[in-house]
Amino acid sequence: MKKFEEKTLNSEMIYQGKIIDLQVDEVELPNGKTSKRELIKHPGAVAVIALTPEGKIVMVEQYRKALEKSIIEIPAGKLEPGEEPIITAARELEEETGYGCEELEHLISFYTSPGFADELVHLYIAKNITRIEEARELDEDEFVDLLEVTVEEALGLLKEKKIYDAKTAYAVQYLQLQQFNR
Amino acid sequence: MKKFEEKTLNSEMIYQGKIIDLQVDEVELPNGKTSKRELIKHPGAVAVIALTPEGKIVMVEQYRKALEKSIIEIPAGKLEPGEEPIITAARELEEETGYGCEELEHLISFYTSPGFADELVHLYIAKNITRIEEARELDEDEFVDLLEVTVEEALGLLKEKKIYDAKTAYAVQYLQLQQFNR
Repeated sequence: MKKFEEKTLNSEMIYQGKIIDLQVDEVELPNGKTSKRELIKHPGAVAVIALTPEGKIVMVEQYRKALEKSIIEIPAGKLEPGEEPIITAARELEEETGYGCEELEHLISFYTSPGFADELVHLYIAKNITRIEEARELDEDEFVDLLEVTVEEALGLLKEKKIYDAKTAYAVQYLQLQQFNR
Repeated sequence: MKKFEEKTLNSEMIYQGKIIDLQVDEVELPNGKTSKRELIKHPGAVAVIALTPEGKIVMVEQYRKALEKSIIEIPAGKLEPGEEPIITAARELEEETGYGCEELEHLISFYTSPGFADELVHLYIAKNITRIEEARELDEDEFVDLLEVTVEEALGLLKEKKIYDAKTAYAVQYLQLQQFNR
């Protein structure tokens, strides 16, 4: 859909980074006026809902420099160039948690911040996860702690603001809904 | 929590914009090595779940330059400097939809992209909404269309990828859960 399309009059690449680029566009609005749009280009990411045989959700705690604190999230990571999201999902699950899985089912994809960024997160659910003896290791600048929590414990972490991000909050709600749909 | 804290060795402000700033930090990792973090500073935002007396969800369709397409979202907007989120929520609801409400209840706040941005979205539910005769107008660079949809229609829009963002997907799930909890 292109309703209220904003035509690009001028586009300036301000910064090309390791993960994100910043581009500032001058646009023509539907009423003929002009405005500026600050746009973050991101390769996209995956997130994985993984349940242990006991029905616990696998989560990771990691420091997020953007927030200057560590938070608890479901396993996630950004796409490498040309990588299929389902491949990224399997890789990130293994690297961050040491778990492999028999199957990954795509649940939903959503933009995280459509007002300024094109980051699209692809959310998967991992089926039949098992520990991998010699799992692939994390990137050398990644440090995470593994947690396994019940849906009720996850709701507690949400209340305590230890879980504090959109994809993980969505995942917990998804699992709550599954309990009703069973 | 500061587990796995990354100490800032150097911080460079690359761009200060109208809505976002880009800062690149050199950090010391827990293993003593150094790395670079690309960080977006954002003032934070609100989003509002508003139900009409008929139980329909109020949504807006708008063009998102970052995505080069228009998508359907719940009403949302960014915080003005020093503004309380609940005030922003009331203002954005009125400006984007022409509805006022008797009460706004805070549901949850979540980071949208903790890997690179500090944007925190505060989600509210509006109680007893009514049309405002002379509602405040949109910012001069905003163009939105109003829609009112049932939860079932919203699920259809999610399948058709007309709803395609995290806060709106969360809101739809929240309302689904409410149906079970009634």
